[in-house]
Amino acid sequence: MKAVVIHAAKDLRIEERETEQPGPGQVEVAIEAGGICGSDLHYYNHGGFGTVRVREPMILGHEVAGTIKALGEGVSGLAVGDRVAVSPSRPCNHCEFCLKGQQNQCLNMRFYGSAMPMPHIQGAFRQRLVAEAYQCHKVRDGVSIHEAAMAEPFAVTLHGVNRAGALTDKRVLVTGCGPIGALAIIAARAHGAREIVATDVMDAVLQKALAVGADRVINVADDPDALSAYSANKGYFDVQFEASGNERAVRSGLEALKPRSTVVQLGLGGDVSIPQNMVVAKEIEMKGTFRFHEEFGLAVDFINQRRVDLKPLLTGTFPLEEAVAAFEAAGDRSRSMKVQLAF
Amino acid sequence: MKAVVIHAAKDLRIEERETEQPGPGQVEVAIEAGGICGSDLHYYNHGGFGTVRVREPMILGHEVAGTIKALGEGVSGLAVGDRVAVSPSRPCNHCEFCLKGQQNQCLNMRFYGSAMPMPHIQGAFRQRLVAEAYQCHKVRDGVSIHEAAMAEPFAVTLHGVNRAGALTDKRVLVTGCGPIGALAIIAARAHGAREIVATDVMDAVLQKALAVGADRVINVADDPDALSAYSANKGYFDVQFEASGNERAVRSGLEALKPRSTVVQLGLGGDVSIPQNMVVAKEIEMKGTFRFHEEFGLAVDFINQRRVDLKPLLTGTFPLEEAVAAFEAAGDRSRSMKVQLAF
Amino acid sequence: MKAVVIHAAKDLRIEERETEQPGPGQVEVAIEAGGICGSDLHYYNHGGFGTVRVREPMILGHEVAGTIKALGEGVSGLAVGDRVAVSPSRPCNHCEFCLKGQQNQCLNMRFYGSAMPMPHIQGAFRQRLVAEAYQCHKVRDGVSIHEAAMAEPFAVTLHGVNRAGALTDKRVLVTGCGPIGALAIIAARAHGAREIVATDVMDAVLQKALAVGADRVINVADDPDALSAYSANKGYFDVQFEASGNERAVRSGLEALKPRSTVVQLGLGGDVSIPQNMVVAKEIEMKGTFRFHEEFGLAVDFINQRRVDLKPLLTGTFPLEEAVAAFEAAGDRSRSMKVQLAF
Amino acid sequence: MKAVVIHAAKDLRIEERETEQPGPGQVEVAIEAGGICGSDLHYYNHGGFGTVRVREPMILGHEVAGTIKALGEGVSGLAVGDRVAVSPSRPCNHCEFCLKGQQNQCLNMRFYGSAMPMPHIQGAFRQRLVAEAYQCHKVRDGVSIHEAAMAEPFAVTLHGVNRAGALTDKRVLVTGCGPIGALAIIAARAHGAREIVATDVMDAVLQKALAVGADRVINVADDPDALSAYSANKGYFDVQFEASGNERAVRSGLEALKPRSTVVQLGLGGDVSIPQNMVVAKEIEMKGTFRFHEEFGLAVDFINQRRVDLKPLLTGTFPLEEAVAAFEAAGDRSRSMKVQLAF
Repeated sequence: MKAVVIHAAKDLRIEERETEQPGPGQVEVAIEAGGICGSDLHYYNHGGFGTVRVREPMILGHEVAGTIKALGEGVSGLAVGDRVAVSPSRPCNHCEFCLKGQQNQCLNMRFYGSAMPMPHIQGAFRQRLVAEAYQCHKVRDGVSIHEAAMAEPFAVTLHGVNRAGALTDKRVLVTGCGPIGALAIIAARAHGAREIVATDVMDAVLQKALAVGADRVINVADDPDALSAYSANKGYFDVQFEASGNERAVRSGLEALKPRSTVVQLGLGGDVSIPQNMVVAKEIEMKGTFRFHEEFGLAVDFINQRRVDLKPLLTGTFPLEEAVAAFEAAGDRSRSMKVQLAF
Repeated sequence: MKAVVIHAAKDLRIEERETEQPGPGQVEVAIEAGGICGSDLHYYNHGGFGTVRVREPMILGHEVAGTIKALGEGVSGLAVGDRVAVSPSRPCNHCEFCLKGQQNQCLNMRFYGSAMPMPHIQGAFRQRLVAEAYQCHKVRDGVSIHEAAMAEPFAVTLHGVNRAGALTDKRVLVTGCGPIGALAIIAARAHGAREIVATDVMDAVLQKALAVGADRVINVADDPDALSAYSANKGYFDVQFEASGNERAVRSGLEALKPRSTVVQLGLGGDVSIPQNMVVAKEIEMKGTFRFHEEFGLAVDFINQRRVDLKPLLTGTFPLEEAVAAFEAAGDRSRSMKVQLAF
Repeated sequence: MKAVVIHAAKDLRIEERETEQPGPGQVEVAIEAGGICGSDLHYYNHGGFGTVRVREPMILGHEVAGTIKALGEGVSGLAVGDRVAVSPSRPCNHCEFCLKGQQNQCLNMRFYGSAMPMPHIQGAFRQRLVAEAYQCHKVRDGVSIHEAAMAEPFAVTLHGVNRAGALTDKRVLVTGCGPIGALAIIAARAHGAREIVATDVMDAVLQKALAVGADRVINVADDPDALSAYSANKGYFDVQFEASGNERAVRSGLEALKPRSTVVQLGLGGDVSIPQNMVVAKEIEMKGTFRFHEEFGLAVDFINQRRVDLKPLLTGTFPLEEAVAAFEAAGDRSRSMKVQLAF
Repeated sequence: MKAVVIHAAKDLRIEERETEQPGPGQVEVAIEAGGICGSDLHYYNHGGFGTVRVREPMILGHEVAGTIKALGEGVSGLAVGDRVAVSPSRPCNHCEFCLKGQQNQCLNMRFYGSAMPMPHIQGAFRQRLVAEAYQCHKVRDGVSIHEAAMAEPFAVTLHGVNRAGALTDKRVLVTGCGPIGALAIIAARAHGAREIVATDVMDAVLQKALAVGADRVINVADDPDALSAYSANKGYFDVQFEASGNERAVRSGLEALKPRSTVVQLGLGGDVSIPQNMVVAKEIEMKGTFRFHEEFGLAVDFINQRRVDLKPLLTGTFPLEEAVAAFEAAGDRSRSMKVQLAF
């Protein structure tokens, strides 16, 4: 079978790998769709991020869906032919964090396509994947396998919404409307956010934000001070989903947020300078959100029930052979939102 | 009567002011003790902080206690001769934040000794103060007026504890052991914190921290990496009370904190650079805490009931006439914790 | 003008009342639609509930909407001709609960059509109502005045959702599908509930529950043990909205609820016998919910934005003159969900 | 070795049992002190409670401490001769509740001395106990083994405090001052409760409540309406720890509680009739609390650090041979608080 392997920055190869047999409790999945994520792009463009570097060839990818081809011993509830979204998350369920229900903080996590541990955790951009049965969530007839493959980033934003607390009566600011920001809009809308204002520096991206549920969008490249209209009387928004990683978005958000409001920081960034005075005086709560756990099944459920429509965010599908082109497209925000590979 | 008036940086004067008569619902208090706070020091040393500048002569001070000398019309529950701690907080009780129970965020707050609005809110370092009856909390016989005057900064830390959430079974890190850090140790201990480790760069200060309840103290000037021993398995502490305003304390704290832990930022600082990656990956919650509201009465109650002992933190008392010497002493961490004026 | 006045059980009269002039900050509203609520029915059928009895003639009604006819001095943001939903809630904004943001617990609440205080608080089933401007929430063009008049009971259920906490990934049981139960289904769905199962003893009512968003409905008159299928492994549901006031619904709900789940009790009932063993062993949280505060504006917003559709719940509209027939119809669950008067 | 075995109501025998060898990860403990709990008394007096009945001979007891006599393979951190408090809680760490951090709700819990499952889980009133190393918490020199054996019921009340949420500035009512009520007073005090009022029907018990930290005690047998003084302005207390299982305590508590307050129900009871009107109108939260998990280690820590003093609650120690006399004494509230066996 073929797999998409990163060797170093800008050195992405399609390589042959041996297929494996599903063991007890496992299934073999023919992967059909795989979305390119920001972390995949970091490996592709920079060979890693922060202190995490690609130190050996690693199959990329963790946003995948496909069809079950074979069942290992003792698997129930799944059948050959079932179409499934596959969660990339494999916590140990034994460490102190797993036993506190914080599986996304597992000390021994094996998350697909991660260069954090050595040896690296090989990813899911491959034609055949042997996965644990518990990772596989059935996709309902009529749901496209490409939408199913978006369950993973959607789960990330559902976890972000979980971190924000109840959104009843909340006015929400989303800064950065790439795939994660746009999915956060969908997730927040589906959980009752009263009003959603979204910012970005690209009009094309903001049009998508409007299409998936933002009430108003602002291009902060055109008007850097646009958010200051929301800073009267100590601020307007109750919750900010920060998905840009941009310091200016953080700082202008703090101005526009109400006292006792919450900033949920989605996605990894570098160092950011924060005006501590404002965080203190307005008693703002800034919290990180990282991956997901039970939200993966929830994401598939929302998609299956047609309670959300993620399809507008899919802007390109490339055959496996054109993986390099796909990665280049995915990295170009001016033309792409979510880009997927077809296997 | 005499009052302590700031005119500009390093220009502090003892001046005469007219006494006032208590109106309906008000009382006249002979101020006997007044503690010098970090913000008073900012006015004295720098003429303000951030964008807040002294633009007209302003009486300083907001940590005061004294004896009631006269009652205005309709005051009940207080009598001439009562010794009282006086809360400096006068929210409007009409704005949107007051009507949400967030009086410390009042849009029209008149907090003693604040140069934020113009005209400035005159402070309480004066021999006679006319205050609203609701600001005055009776001090039990046997409690010194100097300890009573520490109710205000103690209330600040009780509000910080409130912001942290329940401390049951929590391991607590306190960074910065000036008066606020030390009072945070007392407040955390009184609310059940399981273990308290405190850091500072001065041994004298750390001795006070031990005396008031820290389980262990670390001089991070001697050993900058001391906290890294707590970073194994993603971290050790559940809560950090950050009272240093120092970027290094923030960053080393993040290393030593567990996933899903909470940083409560006490006291105003400037810009601080945060490693967003770590906040995200460990899903840390950083929240500001600002002043207090109902915690003032609680602070007096704890003092009255002898459930806390704040006296070890009082390191100097100066007569009113030596206010400049008092401010110089208060600004010298090597010899002072809390410095008060006697009126 | 005419008003609907209760004198005693089953003694409901249409009477003339003087019109009033709007004072400063007030508006005059021509009431056009008024929904009959369970408490109105209690006054009509029994002359009150519990210790609350009608002791003097009282205009009933608190679910109303209409058109502004005149503005008092100083009113801004509203104009003659505006169609508005009128909140019946007038808290004092001065008592201890108002100053904690718990206006629905106001010690001096003047809620339309309530016989709790003496003199009673006259209600809003009248042709002209003088209300405070802040009670009036504009209804968007195209929204029927009858749907607007349902903002009040919808706000009750939005407050119930607020009491339940975030519904992300929550499986919800609704017991009792009268107007409040049905609106709770709509409110829970709009806030992301993962699955909603509803029970009642009448098929007609359960059909409405399905129509407004329940995933499954169960007639517990047909099958009293139906919920026991959900009690395996300590239970299935995370949240129960209890809107029946029926002891059996409470008890069978407890069996079907997961450990650490939440029961939100909507609507007033009498004494209910609880199996304390189960509440303790499963650590269940039972909490009351009462009226609403800021949720009224939110309810109008959801209706205006077409994010919910409350119209299926309106089963009858009667002219003012037929108020008695309207009350009889409203009390007959076999044919009515929400019944309104047209003025 | 000898063990205390219940055969049926009032049929308690001292019997010989085989000693066991500690397996890998296990230790052998010579039990020295064992407290008699309410559930032990239920087995002794009634042969069980509710549907839980003694169906085969069962060793009683789960509040024990002793000295390690032998170590199984691979045990570290413990040594022969260590004095330890032994947690009776052995969750599976595999079921859905364990993996959510709710180990006290484990589907496969093996809690000492429980007749819920068949075969019953044998208890710890025996001279030699083989336990898992993780169950054993070291007791510091100078702490009596009898106080150490109270870690278990203290852990129950610490879990109750955890369920109540932060106690900062909270006024607390404790109804029922048997061992659990009295320990709840200690736990609440240690976590910052502002004021504690305790009720019971026996003066001797109330004297103990005062001794361990209640601010005021009320004998509700003498004055059944005493709590009504606290019901003005909708109530006074923020939190009630209900440890009596008595319906009157529940009902009078609801009158004296503030809106939005919390009742934590400790200990198992039967059916209790609740005035739903009041729960709804005051939006009270009633929550069960069941056993404990990580609070056991916390309890030992508090005892070791002398941050609490549980000794005043120990009112009698009987040698193993007089177990029947011990159970009779433990069941007589007029003369006993906590009764222990010495092995």
